[in-house]
Amino acid sequence: MTDRSSGFTPIDHARRVATLRNRLPLRNGCDTLLLLDLVDVRWLTGFTGSNGWAVVSADGLVVGTDGRYRDRAIDETASSGATVIAETDRSRLHDRLIESMSAAARVALDPATTVHARWRLLASEIELEPTESLVAQLRQVKDGAELERIGAAAGAADAALAEVEPLLRATMDVPVTEADVRDELEYRMRRHGADDRSYDTIVASGPEHAARPHHEVGRRTIVEGDTVVIDVGALVEGYHSDMTRSYVIGEPSTEQREIYALIDAAQRAGVDAVGPGVPASVVDAACRDLFVDAGYGDWYLHGTGHGVGLVIHEHPFPSQASDEVLAVDNVVTVEPGLYRGGFGGMRIEDLVHVTAAGPRVLTHHPKQPFDG
Amino acid sequence: MTDRSSGFTPIDHARRVATLRNRLPLRNGCDTLLLLDLVDVRWLTGFTGSNGWAVVSADGLVVGTDGRYRDRAIDETASSGATVIAETDRSRLHDRLIESMSAAARVALDPATTVHARWRLLASEIELEPTESLVAQLRQVKDGAELERIGAAAGAADAALAEVEPLLRATMDVPVTEADVRDELEYRMRRHGADDRSYDTIVASGPEHAARPHHEVGRRTIVEGDTVVIDVGALVEGYHSDMTRSYVIGEPSTEQREIYALIDAAQRAGVDAVGPGVPASVVDAACRDLFVDAGYGDWYLHGTGHGVGLVIHEHPFPSQASDEVLAVDNVVTVEPGLYRGGFGGMRIEDLVHVTAAGPRVLTHHPKQPFDG
Repeated sequence: MTDRSSGFTPIDHARRVATLRNRLPLRNGCDTLLLLDLVDVRWLTGFTGSNGWAVVSADGLVVGTDGRYRDRAIDETASSGATVIAETDRSRLHDRLIESMSAAARVALDPATTVHARWRLLASEIELEPTESLVAQLRQVKDGAELERIGAAAGAADAALAEVEPLLRATMDVPVTEADVRDELEYRMRRHGADDRSYDTIVASGPEHAARPHHEVGRRTIVEGDTVVIDVGALVEGYHSDMTRSYVIGEPSTEQREIYALIDAAQRAGVDAVGPGVPASVVDAACRDLFVDAGYGDWYLHGTGHGVGLVIHEHPFPSQASDEVLAVDNVVTVEPGLYRGGFGGMRIEDLVHVTAAGPRVLTHHPKQPFDG
Repeated sequence: MTDRSSGFTPIDHARRVATLRNRLPLRNGCDTLLLLDLVDVRWLTGFTGSNGWAVVSADGLVVGTDGRYRDRAIDETASSGATVIAETDRSRLHDRLIESMSAAARVALDPATTVHARWRLLASEIELEPTESLVAQLRQVKDGAELERIGAAAGAADAALAEVEPLLRATMDVPVTEADVRDELEYRMRRHGADDRSYDTIVASGPEHAARPHHEVGRRTIVEGDTVVIDVGALVEGYHSDMTRSYVIGEPSTEQREIYALIDAAQRAGVDAVGPGVPASVVDAACRDLFVDAGYGDWYLHGTGHGVGLVIHEHPFPSQASDEVLAVDNVVTVEPGLYRGGFGGMRIEDLVHVTAAGPRVLTHHPKQPFDG
């Protein structure tokens, strides 16, 4: 936004455009890229509207959108050097898109982010080449300006959770619901500089809710004996953070202590495994093996992590089945957890920047599962 | 959610499933529907997870999802009679999907909400028939249980805006930013029973921001002389509300008064035009014609409205190009506005339930554009 004094290093869109152009032409004589994924469009050009596309060729960059976003598109894409087309009429905008690709021999388009109806329509007018998004690949490696924003997002969530944790501790004395904790976290992240939450904050408590890794927050009152999972992140200029901390309300049972200790050990092992050239599946195994060895393998219901950037879940994905390899300046989560109906659940998650010097953890809020 | 005492009439998913089955078989011998759009899946079965599908045939209803959502899916879909499949491994889940359709002669799938890569994969294993989503059509007509939730969402936004309006009035004396107003609105909607905001709240102020119909909220301080557009809605059990009010800070100019009066007249004309059997384009024209006659046609940058339900922008769309016709129990917005860089902008929006007895307005916060 034009009038925001963010203090962050500006994003160098022109450099991104140049990087992308250096890859042209692609296989099969593809000399033009069509970007329909709005995240790709934003990364490349800066445009943040909810409707738009970009066409990239050796000597052109065109961004198209509808009338609502004309001024915003012109402002936001200035640093990319894009030409902006704005048409309120949908079929007219489509015609201008086709026109923007009229010089192309063959156009690369990602079949994984293009709806079938649109693919068919475009394929009837231009030569399409199904191509995994090159921009999505480039997006996996964060530059300094992106790392600043992700770090600021992580910091906003750290600060909010520090303020809200006492509310959780107070649940022994006053009625506090999952929704109360969530509402305070989301409000306070903004007070600490976030534009928004990164995703729907999870506050999952007790023997059933906490047993669901992606619980939807409810009106349940948190009570003594509960395990509580808080999964919270902030959004800063489009960039996400992601962090999870787990708690026991009141005096923990032996089982709660043991399971927490196991998850904590698994999570440290996962973070320690992060590094450039490391298969993403190795990070998953570092956590998972400890669970399996301890007899808790079937309490682990999800993969160990995901990339984070302009999208909260993006490549690379540290998981069992992954064939990806971590690279310098990836940012990934490491978030093992154990869940079982009747027991509840616990998860510990940090956001980790992959550097040549080793894992750099971006989420700093202390892990204090037990009161006192 | 199982433990939420919402007080709302439960949603009768079994009746929806029966309604859908009554439409089978479709043309070309389609005896099975595959739903990949998560909103369609939710409407039909109650499942609210972020990954899943549903297969509907004359005698079967299967919901598939991944391991994270197993328990939630079982709980949420109980009233639909669905069989739940949960598989953490993606390719295993795909195999179970294909298996669930093994008895089908031909499967209807919506090409407008299915990504091309997935379409191709499915088409290599089963007979697909490109079919506009029948569920999306049915979703346009709201039942009583849905209208309760939409009404409650509208009420939460009404109550929040009533509390926050004084903050806007105070901008003459204390510095208040767009973000401050937004943060209070979103926090207070939840205090008034909303699960969440319905969409990113818009607070757009001054000669440039207010001139953008879909302005992204910034740190701009609201000052005397500004036009301010506040577009705010709440979410209740998945159902959205939508409302816009516009303001002038301090003593309005003659131009600000005139333009506001024109928008107000257009908006009333639009609401009055709403009724069953009325072409959606007629609602648009009722607003637009007044603007054109007054010489402000090119200040009107968007369509006049949209349907609202489980999705904030859904069919029918009151717009110039629409060929849709309104029906009883549609819920649509009527939201004309005028925008010009240097002037700013104003928009007035109400949410309207289409009834045989005429338009029933669901958003009740008073329209008080000028202070005092």
